Amino acid sequence: MLLLAGSPLRATATAHGAGPGTPPISRIDPTFWWVGMKNPKLQLLVHGPGLAASQVTLASYPGVTLDSFQRLESPNYLVVNLTIDTAAKPGKLQLEFKGKRKTTYAYELRARTTPGDKTKVQGISSADFIYLLMPDRFANGDPTNDVVKGNRARTIARDSMYDRHGGDLKGIEQHFDYLKELGVTAIWPTPVVDNNMPKAGYHGYALTDYYAVDPHYGSNEDYVRFVQHAHEQGLKVVHDVVLNHIGSFNYLWLDQPAKDWFHQWPTFTRGNYRNGTVNDPHVAVLDRQLFSTTWFDTTMPDPAQENPLVATYLIQNFLWWVEYTGVDGYRVDTYTYSDPTFLMNWGKAILEEYPQLGMFGETWMQQGEGVAQQAFWTRNVFPPINGFKSNLPGALDFMLRMTLVESLTKPVGFDEGVSRLYYAVQGDWMYEDASRNVIFLDNHDVDRIFSVLGEDVNKQKMALAWLLTERGIPQLYYGTEVLMKNFSRPDGLLREDFPGGWPTDPKNAFTAAGRTPAQHDMHTYVRKLATYRKTHPVLHTGQLTHFVPEDGVYTYFRHDTQGHTVLVMLNCNPAAKTVPLNRFAERLRGYTAARDVLTEAVVPNLQTATVPAFTALVWELR
Amino acid sequence: MLLLAGSPLRATATAHGAGPGTPPISRIDPTFWWVGMKNPKLQLLVHGPGLAASQVTLASYPGVTLDSFQRLESPNYLVVNLTIDTAAKPGKLQLEFKGKRKTTYAYELRARTTPGDKTKVQGISSADFIYLLMPDRFANGDPTNDVVKGNRARTIARDSMYDRHGGDLKGIEQHFDYLKELGVTAIWPTPVVDNNMPKAGYHGYALTDYYAVDPHYGSNEDYVRFVQHAHEQGLKVVHDVVLNHIGSFNYLWLDQPAKDWFHQWPTFTRGNYRNGTVNDPHVAVLDRQLFSTTWFDTTMPDPAQENPLVATYLIQNFLWWVEYTGVDGYRVDTYTYSDPTFLMNWGKAILEEYPQLGMFGETWMQQGEGVAQQAFWTRNVFPPINGFKSNLPGALDFMLRMTLVESLTKPVGFDEGVSRLYYAVQGDWMYEDASRNVIFLDNHDVDRIFSVLGEDVNKQKMALAWLLTERGIPQLYYGTEVLMKNFSRPDGLLREDFPGGWPTDPKNAFTAAGRTPAQHDMHTYVRKLATYRKTHPVLHTGQLTHFVPEDGVYTYFRHDTQGHTVLVMLNCNPAAKTVPLNRFAERLRGYTAARDVLTEAVVPNLQTATVPAFTALVWELR
Repeated sequence: MLLLAGSPLRATATAHGAGPGTPPISRIDPTFWWVGMKNPKLQLLVHGPGLAASQVTLASYPGVTLDSFQRLESPNYLVVNLTIDTAAKPGKLQLEFKGKRKTTYAYELRARTTPGDKTKVQGISSADFIYLLMPDRFANGDPTNDVVKGNRARTIARDSMYDRHGGDLKGIEQHFDYLKELGVTAIWPTPVVDNNMPKAGYHGYALTDYYAVDPHYGSNEDYVRFVQHAHEQGLKVVHDVVLNHIGSFNYLWLDQPAKDWFHQWPTFTRGNYRNGTVNDPHVAVLDRQLFSTTWFDTTMPDPAQENPLVATYLIQNFLWWVEYTGVDGYRVDTYTYSDPTFLMNWGKAILEEYPQLGMFGETWMQQGEGVAQQAFWTRNVFPPINGFKSNLPGALDFMLRMTLVESLTKPVGFDEGVSRLYYAVQGDWMYEDASRNVIFLDNHDVDRIFSVLGEDVNKQKMALAWLLTERGIPQLYYGTEVLMKNFSRPDGLLREDFPGGWPTDPKNAFTAAGRTPAQHDMHTYVRKLATYRKTHPVLHTGQLTHFVPEDGVYTYFRHDTQGHTVLVMLNCNPAAKTVPLNRFAERLRGYTAARDVLTEAVVPNLQTATVPAFTALVWELR
Repeated sequence: MLLLAGSPLRATATAHGAGPGTPPISRIDPTFWWVGMKNPKLQLLVHGPGLAASQVTLASYPGVTLDSFQRLESPNYLVVNLTIDTAAKPGKLQLEFKGKRKTTYAYELRARTTPGDKTKVQGISSADFIYLLMPDRFANGDPTNDVVKGNRARTIARDSMYDRHGGDLKGIEQHFDYLKELGVTAIWPTPVVDNNMPKAGYHGYALTDYYAVDPHYGSNEDYVRFVQHAHEQGLKVVHDVVLNHIGSFNYLWLDQPAKDWFHQWPTFTRGNYRNGTVNDPHVAVLDRQLFSTTWFDTTMPDPAQENPLVATYLIQNFLWWVEYTGVDGYRVDTYTYSDPTFLMNWGKAILEEYPQLGMFGETWMQQGEGVAQQAFWTRNVFPPINGFKSNLPGALDFMLRMTLVESLTKPVGFDEGVSRLYYAVQGDWMYEDASRNVIFLDNHDVDRIFSVLGEDVNKQKMALAWLLTERGIPQLYYGTEVLMKNFSRPDGLLREDFPGGWPTDPKNAFTAAGRTPAQHDMHTYVRKLATYRKTHPVLHTGQLTHFVPEDGVYTYFRHDTQGHTVLVMLNCNPAAKTVPLNRFAERLRGYTAARDVLTEAVVPNLQTATVPAFTALVWELR
């Protein structure tokens, strides 16, 4: 609660003592800071009309020095460099800006709260089960923020996939119990940061203010409380971070500090979306530029992270969010699209300050690029390539997702079907630690797994059994547990509302009574396995040993040195298989029986296993 | 010619002074050796009935010492360890074996010929164009060796794909002119070493004698002459090396030195053929064994290379072949199947003695394993994985072959068709030097390219244009130039005889008159491009720059710093494309026109390029 006491979040000139007629300071980023950060440097980006002509002074403040200030191309900005040494105490710095007139600004330095508070920044690990949701589409807990006065998005329209639907932080919070019961331990909402865009701001990836929560979801203070409440309930929070782009209504774009703060092409130029251009020894210069320096989309300007001022702005912003909210992890959007050197510096700065922070990135690649291209973007065994060596702890494991789908949709062959999943897992040798990867069946960008699998309930259960027993950190996309479906194209229906998230919804799938039998069956399946996983560390940190798929059956074990072993057998065939178990002797040693985790049946001996068509068998050995 | 003077190749007891009634020495491997090798150690494996009980002494020979000798499990072997220091001169060592009786053996030490002789061991580089052929199936130059008296294979049957057909070294030699005219610079025959097997010895991969050429092809001396004649004609020779297995009629298997010289399973156990088990962090112990220690096939015992005696036997054998014949390169069969530590030691020993030797391995993998799995088996940027760090200079580039085929057989997509080729080439960052890879369209193990491409002449030309302009060392499989076709299964017809290689053949495709118009057209295409390649070093060592495929057209450039640039455009569409060239400005700079290498037409400007459906355009910029 300390974090919330005191000054308002967003400084305005009127709130900070500017007299009438003085040049207004419209904002200073970071909006406030802390004493006692490991890095004593702080760089303020100060914005105000005509401010650039001002001289800056700092009223004496023990432990804080004003090192320098500098003008940018725009007349409306000043950069102010401070050093905050260990002697500095919380309080307010008095900054004076003197041009034709004079303005003072009381800049707040707070006391840190994350150090020593174990409920904050807990990190994300393979002990977790992440639930990914879109705040606008999950549940509407506060109808008063559905339409925000003065916002560029003026309407709400639940029948449009591109408009706002009204979901918010309070809606999520109201379903903490639902999530906990499902076995979830961490919530990853798509970005909650302000997307004050006329269109499609609902998705969160078009930031218009680096320092504000989208008012459709709640205030900054609401978000801090949201994280705190989650922590109180034993749920962690992953904050979705966008480094690569902003929304075209971001104030930094509307009033640019300098042209070199953004990559600008003569006309809109679509990128090539090929992250392999970064480490391609044969790359054309143009292709490299078309990947890293183009806009992600027509409404998403691309910050020039190679500009040290931009880099510092971004680094400070993402230190700020951790310290301010105490979130447990960062999911880094479009990780590969950022400037590689910047990525290294950003990751280093964040992890030096918060080594315990969970961090994984969207390292989306194509199956044809192979595991190496995914591993390249996270901590790996490779030397630096073109000067880049990623320090990102984990990848969003697209490669496993694609090969898992192939396992369940294509016939097995030596190089097809489930062999591809086997090969992808074999590729773990390229990671520093593949168990930090976040594994998933689908997300807000790819076709929902139920549709991908032809709405085959058995196959989806198999996919879920894999998700909850494979190495890594499992992530579920909201609604998969109640058979939400649809493809990403053409209509974006993969982002539909969770049924029951709105008071007027005809059915409420958050409750057992509101679920169809099929939905309830799937929900029960997830809950059962996720609960089992939660209480069985062998599925978190136990070693993975897999066997070459034979006859379309892929068998692997999770096992630890405390005598726990779980056998998983995926039958990727349209017919039942009876598998002699002697082949797995090295992992069965010391066991004579098993318990079927899903059916709870006792397996009296370990001679054979019979697995129905497209079914996963999960046995706890005894 | 020096090499051929003097003592006979294979020692026998009668030839070496054993008196009547003395225990015969049936063979000593290596059959002879040289003074002045970098490694002064020499380990002889001596075989003779009941020999193990003997004491060994060496008559005084300046510079040579008998270090030790040792018995093995078998009563018929002795291992003799010698040191040959720099003072030793060529001559004959007098070794005495004294058991109940006494035998002496004159072991020959020769003078080396490879040092200082630039015609020998020339190496293989990207300046070369390799022609892969099967000696039994290319041309029959000497009918007298078609059936070899006393050989286990007693028949010849050209209508069987599994029997001998009669081709030989002389047959190849008779077509050196043909190969040279085609633009070939190096010949790779499948193994010429003795395969005295009752069945299917024709393929050469079931060695029965490490030190003898198959008499169906010629004598050892014939092979030495073959290499010499090739060198005189400006052709290099690649020797096909089998480390992983032998034929079950190999004398070392029939009379085993010790049980631990071979991997032996209680019953024949088929391997899993998954080389990923070597570097898989999740591998099951059994799977690892099933890859590396099983027999490659029922008739192919697996030497236990982790046995130091076996390792030394193999290392010495392959030093011997280089020094004896002066071949230019080694193609290492089933490279991945050998013991990893042995592979490192073997490669180190061979390359320390012959750093200039060309060397590439059969690192066959599956497309789904990705480039990394291929790069793992050659010199790469990875740290040692499970203690293994390959020192093999180049891979047989299966990954490029598979993705090239996909480019020409599947529609283009962001991750399909020619995108896969682009991704595979992008993966070159994982190699120490990808230009040492041997690239190919097909070989004696995979479907012939003409069949794979649906017997589409245009597509095959495209494939050939790629082969002769891509980075790496191009390799052609015999007969591709005259449209030889067929699949590997079920009947092995991909190993048919070259038409005209036998005097009775109705048509002789070695001559223009004997080729159909379609064959001649393809032959001309290959010759034209290969000849161009031969005389244009930019296609050997010029940098490769490629552009992201667009609209199914993949464009790349080979360019050097001496002002040479070749543009290659592969249109992987069933329709013509006109491509504006401004996108390639960075590589067109300084040029205003071009010459079409294939049509010889002048291209007056560099505004656009029009490429017909499934056609490769090759332009030399001017």
